[in-house]
Amino acid sequence: MTISYIAETAGVSVPTVSKVINGRAGVSAGTRARIEALIDEYGYQKSSAPSRSAMVDLVFDELESMWGVEIIRGVQRAARQNRVGVVLSEFGPQGSAIRYWIDDALDRRPACVVTVAQLGQEERDRLRARGIPFVVFDPTVELPDDVPFVGATNWAGGRSATRHLTGLGHRRVAVVAGPDHVLCCRARYDGYRAAMEAADLPVDPALVVRADLTREAGHAAARGLLALPDRPTAVVAGNDLQALGVYQAAREAGLRIPEDLSVVGFDDLPVAALVDPPLTTVHQPLVEMAAAATELALALGRGERPAQVGLELATTLTVRRSTAPPGGAR
Amino acid sequence: MTISYIAETAGVSVPTVSKVINGRAGVSAGTRARIEALIDEYGYQKSSAPSRSAMVDLVFDELESMWGVEIIRGVQRAARQNRVGVVLSEFGPQGSAIRYWIDDALDRRPACVVTVAQLGQEERDRLRARGIPFVVFDPTVELPDDVPFVGATNWAGGRSATRHLTGLGHRRVAVVAGPDHVLCCRARYDGYRAAMEAADLPVDPALVVRADLTREAGHAAARGLLALPDRPTAVVAGNDLQALGVYQAAREAGLRIPEDLSVVGFDDLPVAALVDPPLTTVHQPLVEMAAAATELALALGRGERPAQVGLELATTLTVRRSTAPPGGAR
Repeated sequence: MTISYIAETAGVSVPTVSKVINGRAGVSAGTRARIEALIDEYGYQKSSAPSRSAMVDLVFDELESMWGVEIIRGVQRAARQNRVGVVLSEFGPQGSAIRYWIDDALDRRPACVVTVAQLGQEERDRLRARGIPFVVFDPTVELPDDVPFVGATNWAGGRSATRHLTGLGHRRVAVVAGPDHVLCCRARYDGYRAAMEAADLPVDPALVVRADLTREAGHAAARGLLALPDRPTAVVAGNDLQALGVYQAAREAGLRIPEDLSVVGFDDLPVAALVDPPLTTVHQPLVEMAAAATELALALGRGERPAQVGLELATTLTVRRSTAPPGGAR
Repeated sequence: MTISYIAETAGVSVPTVSKVINGRAGVSAGTRARIEALIDEYGYQKSSAPSRSAMVDLVFDELESMWGVEIIRGVQRAARQNRVGVVLSEFGPQGSAIRYWIDDALDRRPACVVTVAQLGQEERDRLRARGIPFVVFDPTVELPDDVPFVGATNWAGGRSATRHLTGLGHRRVAVVAGPDHVLCCRARYDGYRAAMEAADLPVDPALVVRADLTREAGHAAARGLLALPDRPTAVVAGNDLQALGVYQAAREAGLRIPEDLSVVGFDDLPVAALVDPPLTTVHQPLVEMAAAATELALALGRGERPAQVGLELATTLTVRRSTAPPGGAR
């Protein structure tokens, strides 16, 4: 089986086939798919696969101040244990570096890629063509079944946050949910609903607000909720930043936390333990998730076939001092 | 000039000289110094310097949740502009990776190194022997004059924080200073003293407390200060975490910020804008410092000789809502 035979069968030039085999750009998606199907069918093997470097490529769209470090520490922990280096890339504002990252990454031939950024179909295809495995960290959109990922149990987290409040006796529990198209937000909200139903409490549409995952949006959402005639006694926020916005709205409304209003966050960012009162929140095991993603990617890079290439690590509820029974009934 | 001649002159074996030239371990500091002096004297040149990779090595002792990301973003920004990759290393708990980092780094032959970790004399010597330039980010100890570094104007920052308070009319201004052996803490404290003296205010030893740079230590220090019969009306903290400890102590003492007590932090971590009230603090331009360190290291890696290899970037005061005139006199 030769490249020229594949080229002839596919009705394309030899350089085009070579581009697909080597993961280069400049081939339309349709042509690429046709050529890859032929390669699969005829089992073409590159004569000499260049050796891999002992590196893992870690990719971010934009580094988040709040949890970027947790992810990097997890990757570093796994990298140290396997004694591989970590090449860190940030696409930066407007994804300015994404254009050349894939070329540079293919040149580096890393053992594997861990990506917090959402790679497009083309990048995924080009990595696959060069046999560089990749694992998606905490995907925000639904991925094809064959894309390996490591996430967190968002549904269970939303449920346990809400159950904590109903267990304290709250009946008017509001939720500031994140955008519905963000997968983790949808799962957290469904967890809220499941816990409310399990406690035989109605989901009052007036107590459900969607807002962006920022402090400002949480503030605006909570102002509306706290102005209701029959205001909630507790709020489940979509993340910690929203929860801090709820803090702000509560203070402006003259409500004390937790005596007059209980608040639960999601993420357990470092800031959660530093605010006053310290925030009860759902802990995402970001370090462990990142370490697991790296171990999985390295295993794939060694040619292993793990039984399971998609997994969610368990969240846990960290109870601090922003939650109490309703009505200050301590 | 041959290696064997240097070996003979130094009274050591040829492999020992070779180790020094190639930056390898296993040579005592004294022997290394003697051999390097001879190499300098006789101008030995390696016959073929292996080519450098288009990479910068970025090294941390342990990644700090609060400001690690700011540093990484600055390095990434400069790296993108120069289209070089970034290899990130964290020595981890107990510096577990420092043993092999230097070997791996020398093998990688990066264009340069930016180090947030405090490298020892041996690591610095081995990098120098291989001609790999390095720049120290925000050094915490005094370095030899020939070690390039980028820091912040800590003395000026401490002075402007204090001057802001004296300008508001405060006379009883306390300082929670960091440990005296940490260079930046000493500089900040001296800035406090300079501002007090410029305002013709005495530095009352009862209002000067040294504490570790944590929230807990800031809390303990502020409890003592706020229990004084003639308590301060304002506190300059050694960093933002200490300032959050002051917040906690103020609340416990029933004091409102800023009406009863003004507080200024140092660093301008993301958390500073999120707490209630938002914290007035000295902004360290961490992103710009990291970008400058990377540009400097890359310039050294290209063989340029910058006029200045040690620099401090200016801090600026970010005034938020934790400061007001004393006595609630708004």
